[in-house]
Amino acid sequence: MKITIAQLNYHVGNFERNSFLIKQAIKKASDEGADLVIFSELCITGYPPLDLLDHADFVKKCDETVKEIASCCRGITAIVGSPIINTRPEGKKLFNAALVLSEGGIIFEARKALLPTYDIFDEYRYFEPERNFGIFEFKGKKIAITICEDLWDEQPFPNEFEKTRLYTVSPAEELAKFNPELLINLSASPFSYTRTGAKRKIFTGKASKYNIPVIMVNQTGANTELIFDGGSMVISKNGRIIRQLPFFEEAVYTFDYEDLLSVTDEADPPLPDQIELIYKALITGIKDYFGKSGFSKAVLGLSGGIDSATVLCLAVEALGAENVKALILPSRYTPARSLDDAVKMAQNAGVSYEVISIEKPFMAFEEVLKPIFRGLPPDVTEENIQARIRAVLLMAYSNKFGHILLNTSNKSEAAVGYGTLYGDMAGGLSVIGDVYKTDIYRLAKYINRNSEVIPESILTKPPSAELRPDQLDTDSLPEYPVLDGILYRYIEKQMPVSSIIAEGFDAETVLKTIRMINSNEYKRYQAPPILRISQKAFGYGRRMPIVAKY
Amino acid sequence: MKITIAQLNYHVGNFERNSFLIKQAIKKASDEGADLVIFSELCITGYPPLDLLDHADFVKKCDETVKEIASCCRGITAIVGSPIINTRPEGKKLFNAALVLSEGGIIFEARKALLPTYDIFDEYRYFEPERNFGIFEFKGKKIAITICEDLWDEQPFPNEFEKTRLYTVSPAEELAKFNPELLINLSASPFSYTRTGAKRKIFTGKASKYNIPVIMVNQTGANTELIFDGGSMVISKNGRIIRQLPFFEEAVYTFDYEDLLSVTDEADPPLPDQIELIYKALITGIKDYFGKSGFSKAVLGLSGGIDSATVLCLAVEALGAENVKALILPSRYTPARSLDDAVKMAQNAGVSYEVISIEKPFMAFEEVLKPIFRGLPPDVTEENIQARIRAVLLMAYSNKFGHILLNTSNKSEAAVGYGTLYGDMAGGLSVIGDVYKTDIYRLAKYINRNSEVIPESILTKPPSAELRPDQLDTDSLPEYPVLDGILYRYIEKQMPVSSIIAEGFDAETVLKTIRMINSNEYKRYQAPPILRISQKAFGYGRRMPIVAKY
Repeated sequence: MKITIAQLNYHVGNFERNSFLIKQAIKKASDEGADLVIFSELCITGYPPLDLLDHADFVKKCDETVKEIASCCRGITAIVGSPIINTRPEGKKLFNAALVLSEGGIIFEARKALLPTYDIFDEYRYFEPERNFGIFEFKGKKIAITICEDLWDEQPFPNEFEKTRLYTVSPAEELAKFNPELLINLSASPFSYTRTGAKRKIFTGKASKYNIPVIMVNQTGANTELIFDGGSMVISKNGRIIRQLPFFEEAVYTFDYEDLLSVTDEADPPLPDQIELIYKALITGIKDYFGKSGFSKAVLGLSGGIDSATVLCLAVEALGAENVKALILPSRYTPARSLDDAVKMAQNAGVSYEVISIEKPFMAFEEVLKPIFRGLPPDVTEENIQARIRAVLLMAYSNKFGHILLNTSNKSEAAVGYGTLYGDMAGGLSVIGDVYKTDIYRLAKYINRNSEVIPESILTKPPSAELRPDQLDTDSLPEYPVLDGILYRYIEKQMPVSSIIAEGFDAETVLKTIRMINSNEYKRYQAPPILRISQKAFGYGRRMPIVAKY
Repeated sequence: MKITIAQLNYHVGNFERNSFLIKQAIKKASDEGADLVIFSELCITGYPPLDLLDHADFVKKCDETVKEIASCCRGITAIVGSPIINTRPEGKKLFNAALVLSEGGIIFEARKALLPTYDIFDEYRYFEPERNFGIFEFKGKKIAITICEDLWDEQPFPNEFEKTRLYTVSPAEELAKFNPELLINLSASPFSYTRTGAKRKIFTGKASKYNIPVIMVNQTGANTELIFDGGSMVISKNGRIIRQLPFFEEAVYTFDYEDLLSVTDEADPPLPDQIELIYKALITGIKDYFGKSGFSKAVLGLSGGIDSATVLCLAVEALGAENVKALILPSRYTPARSLDDAVKMAQNAGVSYEVISIEKPFMAFEEVLKPIFRGLPPDVTEENIQARIRAVLLMAYSNKFGHILLNTSNKSEAAVGYGTLYGDMAGGLSVIGDVYKTDIYRLAKYINRNSEVIPESILTKPPSAELRPDQLDTDSLPEYPVLDGILYRYIEKQMPVSSIIAEGFDAETVLKTIRMINSNEYKRYQAPPILRISQKAFGYGRRMPIVAKY
């Protein structure tokens, strides 16, 4: 039996594109002599469709698209992921299903049993969990079909208080009772830089445990903040990875089922470097945010600091230098050196740039506010005005020329609220809002791996917002390695305060940092969507009350 | 048996306040000779605690608070709502529980079976649904204890494609098997102006169906965008409302259980007017947003239009005229009449105001952008610059004097993206972002019910953004009654396009409107939290993808 796996880049709600990609892959699989071609979870809609699933129109379109694809399955069988209506009298309106298509019809249906409802996942919002399990017989082989989370039942979760079993049922265990000869998993599994190895273990673990070949098909590409890393896997019955498809790329791969049955002890293919994966994830995120929303050009503010320099390089890689515009917006507090660094950065990156001093608008604001402020001393108000003038200029450029403004705030700043709402927090997309400051340095070094693109002076100077004379980030914040250490433990690991302190962090610094995180929820609420690369990004995967005391 | 119900205003995460309120009510109930005092769902944490439930520290604090309250239950029994840890080896980490406290301990535990996971509710994100049911015996009576959604099993949902049974289990049906003599429901049921009557029917329906008295205890007050309307109910065994506690107010009420057993055919107490409820809801929302976050003063931009006038009046009612500051920010396009209306409005409301022309900052921006814009004709860019200059000024006032900026955008604008991001869409709280423009007029008339607070000229002039000469909203949008009709059907009712057209709306207008709604998701993503008064508000109850085609 020949099998093809298709790792494709779907666009949420774009039935035409998704169906075109799927049909193209069916044709290719057919040409390569495949009997079976497997796609990823909810490939018909793209993942995540979110509340589009509440619209009957949308669900009807899914059904029509599935039928149209089924009509292309002649002499070949395809497994696609789609929402289907729950026709039982009780329960949620939909199932998250894997549909087996052949000769114009649906010949088998597997429904997702475990519905992730945590972090960025809301599946129980839409879907009824299936509690009946069955096997699909194909070419004399018994095949167990599962959907993503169905195989993640043994996962420990950092925020489940050490509980290791989030679900009361194990689909793999249930399906094992039928003695299947192949275990298929349709996934929509987003990238998280700490989980690439763990993800492998989930699937190789199931293969070893049940002594059965496992095929996992993931999607690739980004839909708004979620970036899918591909990396689909073909695993032998003794749990070795025979083949892992590339990360962040489309790929269609055909192989023989029989090859998965031989016991091999070859080592798994090596994983790429973490920082390389993060880099590719962010490029993918930018590329698809623009491509899928029909835009090609970006604008950003270039300060001479490391954050905007890094975002500029990522944008150039994703969109091409000719599609990126830099505005350099110095104030009376911008040191000449920063201006030089910004200009040099724009030149190194090969992008067009403009320098606009914010002095005149700043003076105009000072003048009209003078009677109201009645001689009160300058404070954070005046700092924010500068940041907001820059946002007005960047958005004016964006509006006039149709460029999307890229936000350049990092995760450390966003966490502690070290940024100005409607100022440097503005933008259509936050590129590095899930990257801690210390990791920005790693990214910058990766960008410079072949030659100095980001000027050395940008990498070595101490971080500053430059909103008042001689200002440094460390005036208000702990040193970044300490800050990031606390943030990671509190945000990603959700560790209790006492445990963070027990790891050697200064108690007062920990408490002060956590207070800053909590009291700035209101700012993050209005932040742009953030490309997610971690296990816990700000945005819709982290839902904290604003008006709360904690 | 004497029973007290306590309808209180909890603050999320504020254990000290919540526990103080609860203990105070226990004392009062005790003084009134009650045997049993009942509080609302998750009263220990306040509803909704959201991802605070992911923090072990937070859950521990719940446990400690419950123990402390239990120690106050001497000679009286209390039922409180709290998250408790799920000690079973499998399943989600917590249960949403009703705990019966007596003589220092927990003597009975009921766990929520139906976990709302739609709209603003995410309960399956945190809680394991209970599937075992039991009865609590107290003073020789068998009492069935349920939690909110547990009694909503027969509800039709607009977005469930006509399905009327969202759940596969009915807790009332299960509990009825024990022949209980009283059915208690601990609620955390937010206000929605279309549901006040339906909410009554849910509970009176259960009483009639099982021929059993029903007691429903709700919380009141607002936590960020969610406003709880109170309206707790005591229902006789034949389904008559013996007493409904006030809306949007705290209340503690003691009665005799025996009074619920007599069959009465007195009519239910009348419901307040819808617009009065909306008005009270918004006042509550503002009051608690400020009070619970430790702020007392608001600033807003007053344009001379109906939206900002209405928000000003609501703010004055909620915070007091002395705590509200109006900035009137005319541009070269502001007609003298609007300026007059704005000034008159501020004077009528008795608030302090300042007039600041935005001309100088606008000229400064025009000047510095001139070389970049190279003679391109003015367009929406220049309109947005004006709106953003106003936001800079309002935020400067907010930053300098510690006032929270109130946003004055309405739901119709937010729906079609008729607003400027970082301009008139700025603010800490959106007061009327869930109120359609046509309902703003109803609200304004309600505000003027006793005397003309909002000048008549504001109520009668055609709506305009005044960002270019002679601009009218109807240049870009359908007339508001038509627009709102379409919006309501698409957003609240999630009706298919064809059904909206079938109700008599012009097909092209419907399609154009829906395109505007969908393509402006990116703007709403960055909007402030919106006080929710409807069944479907923008914000975290409506999760739409940004980079999607639909």
